[in-house]
Amino acid sequence: MLSKQRVPQLQTCLSPALLHTNNVSQSIVVIIDVLRATSTIAAALKNGAKSVIPVNSVAECIKLGNQLEVVTAGERDGRIAEGLAYGNTPFQYTEKFIKGKTLVLTTTNGTRLLHMALAENAKEIITGSFTNLSSVCAYLIEKKQNVILACAAWKDKVNLEDTLFAGAVISKIKEHFIIDCDSSQIAESLYSLARGDIFEFMQMKNASHFKRLLDFGLEKDIIYCLTENVSDVLVIYKDGRLVAG
Amino acid sequence: MLSKQRVPQLQTCLSPALLHTNNVSQSIVVIIDVLRATSTIAAALKNGAKSVIPVNSVAECIKLGNQLEVVTAGERDGRIAEGLAYGNTPFQYTEKFIKGKTLVLTTTNGTRLLHMALAENAKEIITGSFTNLSSVCAYLIEKKQNVILACAAWKDKVNLEDTLFAGAVISKIKEHFIIDCDSSQIAESLYSLARGDIFEFMQMKNASHFKRLLDFGLEKDIIYCLTENVSDVLVIYKDGRLVAG
Repeated sequence: MLSKQRVPQLQTCLSPALLHTNNVSQSIVVIIDVLRATSTIAAALKNGAKSVIPVNSVAECIKLGNQLEVVTAGERDGRIAEGLAYGNTPFQYTEKFIKGKTLVLTTTNGTRLLHMALAENAKEIITGSFTNLSSVCAYLIEKKQNVILACAAWKDKVNLEDTLFAGAVISKIKEHFIIDCDSSQIAESLYSLARGDIFEFMQMKNASHFKRLLDFGLEKDIIYCLTENVSDVLVIYKDGRLVAG
Repeated sequence: MLSKQRVPQLQTCLSPALLHTNNVSQSIVVIIDVLRATSTIAAALKNGAKSVIPVNSVAECIKLGNQLEVVTAGERDGRIAEGLAYGNTPFQYTEKFIKGKTLVLTTTNGTRLLHMALAENAKEIITGSFTNLSSVCAYLIEKKQNVILACAAWKDKVNLEDTLFAGAVISKIKEHFIIDCDSSQIAESLYSLARGDIFEFMQMKNASHFKRLLDFGLEKDIIYCLTENVSDVLVIYKDGRLVAG
């Protein structure tokens, strides 16, 4: 049995605006942006993309597209952004389409949080979504390091889907960590209510970003993003790129 | 029936660090600091205190104590702070002791949040805890204004007790508001799990500030602070003071 000092801590951060309450430099940070950034990234890497470069803005995405041989992608208000070639739907990134290619993806909430974690000297950064839940859990158990489950949220507003994913991770790995963090307890409690049918729970609770995507006709995307382990790959940040670990 | 435009919005803010995501200047802000600031304040006002002046620091509390005929109170690490006369326990503020007097109370999280809400031009500020739940709910229903349930949290870290109180309010008044806010859904869901025995739920979930107070031997205070309507008075901020409404 490990002595108490050796058991790592797990914390949950429900919004980027709360990141300062966590000890980022001592932890592996899991960036969570379920709808749809971290789900789409896992899909692309599972299907053989060489790497994914997450960028903040459409302009930066276009700029990289002009400099490098890459696939540029991003949406604004549910449509492919002007000047970019592809959208944010995970269904776009089939093996046939993405294998061996580099994807430059513009996302807002997830990328901003990733850059914040970098600025705070995170020990390591991985990304998580229901679609690669098992890989995330296996990695965190294996590493035996402190963990921060960091929700990308929506313009700093806490959201249900990212909180639920944090809860799903906690429910699976909590025996391996000390959890002295009310946000983690909240996330796991919420997941215990939703786990039977997360889509149904989100609908019942009128989840705000979920509803926004439904209004864009993206129900199929949402169902995919909430399905466990359909793109079960470890996604790890190395030298400015997300790669399959 | 009210037209849709006339139904006010209800939002929940789980930490002072998230206040910027809410429209403070258009709302009544309910400051929530269950353990123990807003419970102690309700106790003092219910028992006839003339007013409560919430201040940020022990030094400010001492200064006001020297200038005015007031009762100074505040704790640090579970003991009465040096230079102050009384502590934060609601049991101190019996009718016999506090009637007709002004209480200057130093609290950290709750007072800071109240000052933030003032700086953002909150339409109105009231305070809430389980101990005055019914008064808070009745007032919010009657006013028909937008509401922000603002949790004081602990040094910006989300906590269970303030989130649970927000959930309790939502469960009682939600029919009167539009709720397009995932934090509100999270709070109400959490409360649905805890409502049978909130003390037991907090203990089971290893709630961090709860545990801190238990370690100080303050179980009796906690039980009081989690009991509905034992000091059922409306607490409203007017001209720099909290008074019974």
